[in-house]
This record gives sequence, C-alpha cells and structure tokens, in this order.
Amino acid sequence: MAHRTLGTLAAAGLLVIAAGAGADDLQQRAAKQFKPIPQYPPVIDGNEMTDDKITLGKMLFFEPRLSASHLISCNTCHNVGMGGHDYLPVAIGHGWQKGPRNSPTVYNAVFNAAQFWDGRAADLAEQAKGPVQAGVEMSSTPQRVEDTLSSMPEYVERFRRAFPGEENPVSFDHMATAIEAFEATLITPDAPFDRYLRGDTGALDDQEQRGLALFMDKGCVSCHSGINLGGQNYYPFGLVARPDGKILPSGDKGRFAVTETESDEYVFRAAPLRNIALTAPYFHSGAVWDLEEAVAVMGTAQLGAELGEEEVTDITAFLHTLTGDVPSITYPELPPSTDATPRPDPSAPTP
Amino acid sequence: MAHRTLGTLAAAGLLVIAAGAGADDLQQRAAKQFKPIPQYPPVIDGNEMTDDKITLGKMLFFEPRLSASHLISCNTCHNVGMGGHDYLPVAIGHGWQKGPRNSPTVYNAVFNAAQFWDGRAADLAEQAKGPVQAGVEMSSTPQRVEDTLSSMPEYVERFRRAFPGEENPVSFDHMATAIEAFEATLITPDAPFDRYLRGDTGALDDQEQRGLALFMDKGCVSCHSGINLGGQNYYPFGLVARPDGKILPSGDKGRFAVTETESDEYVFRAAPLRNIALTAPYFHSGAVWDLEEAVAVMGTAQLGAELGEEEVTDITAFLHTLTGDVPSITYPELPPSTDATPRPDPSAPTP
Repeated sequence: MAHRTLGTLAAAGLLVIAAGAGADDLQQRAAKQFKPIPQYPPVIDGNEMTDDKITLGKMLFFEPRLSASHLISCNTCHNVGMGGHDYLPVAIGHGWQKGPRNSPTVYNAVFNAAQFWDGRAADLAEQAKGPVQAGVEMSSTPQRVEDTLSSMPEYVERFRRAFPGEENPVSFDHMATAIEAFEATLITPDAPFDRYLRGDTGALDDQEQRGLALFMDKGCVSCHSGINLGGQNYYPFGLVARPDGKILPSGDKGRFAVTETESDEYVFRAAPLRNIALTAPYFHSGAVWDLEEAVAVMGTAQLGAELGEEEVTDITAFLHTLTGDVPSITYPELPPSTDATPRPDPSAPTP
Repeated sequence: MAHRTLGTLAAAGLLVIAAGAGADDLQQRAAKQFKPIPQYPPVIDGNEMTDDKITLGKMLFFEPRLSASHLISCNTCHNVGMGGHDYLPVAIGHGWQKGPRNSPTVYNAVFNAAQFWDGRAADLAEQAKGPVQAGVEMSSTPQRVEDTLSSMPEYVERFRRAFPGEENPVSFDHMATAIEAFEATLITPDAPFDRYLRGDTGALDDQEQRGLALFMDKGCVSCHSGINLGGQNYYPFGLVARPDGKILPSGDKGRFAVTETESDEYVFRAAPLRNIALTAPYFHSGAVWDLEEAVAVMGTAQLGAELGEEEVTDITAFLHTLTGDVPSITYPELPPSTDATPRPDPSAPTP
C-alpha cells in the first residue's frame, strides 16, 4: 500500500515536470527554505499535552471571566472563526480602549520562535499571561483569575485532572500552560504550499510558482522562511526606506521597548505569513488592508526593490497558497458563575 | 423493544411510588401545567428550516462584523457556552456602554410568546434586528449590514443557497430570518424535569418534588407555566409588594414604553425559567446573583407570601432540575474581510 502511494506520487510528479519545465528545481529550492505545517500538534518542552489539559485550555481560551469585565476572552481578539484574529487595525479591549498593535493570529503561533510583535514572550504560556493582565486588554490580575476559577467547582475539578498530583492545581501559571496546550492544537496543515513542499508540484499553478520564485529571488525569504515563513527572528522595519508614518508610527519603537538597545529601534519580529490572506489588515500598525499593497510596501521598505505590478500580483498569488485547513472546534460549555465568583468589574479606567 | 422500554419505565415508576407517596399525583398535576422541551427544533411559520439557512444563521450569530466596531456579535451577549447569556447584570455594548437590561438567554427563546423583557419583538427574527441597530449594543444599520455581507463572496453565495429564487438574497431581513432559523435549534431537551414530565417520576428526588409541589401550590405557576415556565405573558413586577429600587429601578417602566398604557407600568414578560441555574444574575435589572434570594424576592413581591427558608431551598432545588442538555456547536469559519468591506468603526458616541 505504501509502495503504491509512493508510485502514484512519483507518477504525478512526472506529469507536472512534463507540463512546467523547471518546476522541480523550484520545488527543491523551496523545500530547503521552508517546512510544511505538520498534521499533528508539536511537542512542547515541559508541557505535556494531555486531553484533560487541552480541554481545560480550550475552556479558558473561550472564558470571558478571565477578564475584569467578564466580557473579553482570548477568542475575542484571536477569533478562531476569523483566521485566529479580529480583522481590526488594533485590538479593542477593556473599557473600549484601543490596543497599541494589530492582534497576531493564534493559528500556528506555536511555531513562532517567540510571541508578540516584539517577541517579548518566549512562548505561548508566557504570552497568555500578558493580555489577561494588560490594562488595555483584559485588565485582570493573577489573584483575581485564581479567585474566579476557584469559585467554580467544575474548574477546580478540571484543573485537578489536568495537573494531577499538584498541590495547588488552580493557579495563574497553570491557566497559562493549559491555554498553551490548547493553542498548540491550533495549526492549519494542508495548505496548497504544504502539499507543494511535500512533492505535489501541481499544488501551485504557474502564477503561484512564479510568485514563489520571486519570493525567494527578490529576498523576501531572508526574513520570511521556515515553517511559518517568518516569526523566527527580528529585523528593522524600514531597513532600506522608512515607510510612511501611518504604517510605521514613530511612537512605537518595537523591540527597543524590550531590550532598550538603540539598534533595536523599530525592530520587529518578522511577521509569520501563514494564512496571510485571512489576516488583514497588515503590519503591527494594521494600517494596510490590501495584501498587494502590503507586498509592495515590503519591497520598497525592506528590499529597496520597487516591485513591478505583475511581480506584486504573482507574489500575492503565492501568498494565497499559504491558507491551510483550520481545525474543527466545538464550543466549550463553561461552568456557571457562583456566589463566590468575583463580580464583573467593567469600570473603565479614567481617561 | 418498545414494549420492553415501557415495562422498564413502569417498573421504575412503581419503585418511586413506593418510596414517595403521592408522587404520581404530583406528576399528573405537573403534566397539566408544563410541557417538556421537544427533542427537535420546532417548526417556525414562514421560515423554513433548511440546512443552508441554519448554517448561514450560525455564521451570522457569531459574526462580529454585523456590529459597527466589528467586535460584538450575537454570541458576545448570548454566549452559547455560558447558558446562552453573559453572566453580567446588564449587557456591555458598543463603546463599552452599559445596556439598560439583563441579557436574556437565547436557549429555548424560540418557545417564548414574544422576545425581550417587555415583549416588544413578536419573534426571534424581529428580535435579531434590534441589537444590531441599537446604539448601545452593535450600533450598525441595515445598509451597513447589507454592504458588509455583500462584500464577502462566500456570504453572497451562502445567502443565495439559503434563500433560493429570491431577487435580493443578501438583505437585512434575510439576515434576521437566518439567525432565527439557527436560534430555533438552540433548545435544551432532557432536563431532569423533562424526563419527569414524560413519566419518569424518579427523575426528581424528594426535595425537588417538594419544590415542584410548592411551585404549584404557592402560585408561582400562575405566571411560570408552559414549556418555558414563563415567557408567555406579561405581569406587573411588584404585584403585591414593590421590591427595592435596586431590583426594580424606577427609571425602567417595562412594557409601558411599548404600549404607553398606564396599567403597563412596571409590567414585564414573566421570565422563562428554563436553565435558570445557569442564568444569574436575575431579573431585568440583573441585581440579584443568588437564585434562593431571587425566589424569596418573588415570593414577597408577586405572591405576598413570605416563603420559609426550607420552602425557598426546596423551590430552588426544583429550579435546578430545569437545566437541560445544550446542543454541540461547532465554531463556524467566517469568510475574510475584503477591500470592499466597510471598515470597522469603533468610534464610541460622545457621552
């Protein structure tokens, strides 16, 4: 059976080689720069992925009572039904405050080397603790989260099962590791580009293959490579030419705020490009809605190459092949608030 | 097989009759006042329930781009994972404004005679149009909704399939009827009380049966009867004694705002009590978090009966038997915003 499948794949490959000369060279070059999304979630060091933990993590991901107002959950800004984000330039959070940056997608985030636009969290567990506490996002505290979760017997029992043998199963840290376990399952395999990387050269049409070639030849790949086509390293935005102030506002100095090193001014983590067709608007500022415009901006700002109209169209066509299959997610049933649950506190901060 | 089942049910019934005398009389009295939730969604006059329409309605129910801000969906306040509501005293909406009343649960709402606390919408389709346009909720307009949905090719195709043969399939009215079709599926059968009403007298324990007897004997049933134990008719809140101003704020005159008839001052639709254990806080004001307290308030305000502590506990135990099985809901995959999609407008109204 395995032999037969291999034979069929080889035959399909030969057909494509016959149809489009050079396709195989391109495929081989691409396979050295990029990796397909795996079919199954990755293993996370120090966070064993049990069913109990993933189920709990899913409940917490959808749990608005992790926020002070009881209105905002992880899913509010990282909406699993909307490409894992919110289709907003910048997030709207507690008290209707505008967040400072565009919400990154949660899909395939587990494959990023670090989290947030400035990489200030090493992993998804650390990331999860940020928005819960941020005044402009969920505006809660570790103590309030622990009091909230401890007030609902079903959560206490579920934390016990997810963290067996622990003295204090219901903790802010465990909240974060459970959310990480769930988020690690939010991967989108089987994009046309994944099938292409695995050897099905027919998965990309001629235009998409031209776009892929341009993506590598023009230098996009220098920052956007690997499994997520980005998300692995830090680069100055405006390397060659500074984009306009709407796209790169002078008030947000990126990684400089993390490292306080002058050379990190306007340095950001290269955006991961997986499912990029589903994650408008673009850039940390969320200032650009059109993917072709975003590609052109990148050409000028990062490559110093004014890309021709056709080149932009071809690269954009290639980027559309990065849209994978989202997992099927059953809405979790959350336990009822009890008398002991801290009351919702929607009081907005004084401006 | 059917015979055997009947035999088993009868045997179980006999055991209960032996254990608690009079249980069968109680069951027969109850079966005259209440009806079980059916296993399948009801038929809605003039709104054929096709799979295409229900699927579209589910997408729209979860669609935050029906709101001006692109942040608030039906599910924000009628959260299907949280008993169909938001565990908040009053809703939080556009611009972080507080809504005027407690969000009613969407579960089994299809069985209510009319929608909203004051019954101002005749059915779920009419209801759905309200929050989408309300300035304190989603703050959109029919035109904006139609422009938004028309801007996404997948929605256009799905409206076409859900409303075949219609000249303008993408319309605000069709949005509402599709949402109604989905919401009609949000029913919660198989509560212990449903099994009891169907003849399984063992489904309620002794205390719950005492509570049911009190519920009927004390007069609760006068307003809270039928399939939803309420939701069918209008009654003055404070019929016998006016509850305190926190519970019944003088600024909200209930149905008076709809009919402008003096006798409708402080008149509200009797709250449906299905899944009441999952829908704190209680009353249109959302002022009471504890179900026992709510029961005691009702006794004083509506029945003129100071219920004893044990009576309150028994009635509350009975109310817990109204929690049914929620349907399994797969999170819908929503189409990406396009260049033609009206941009999110989170600008809050000037206070």
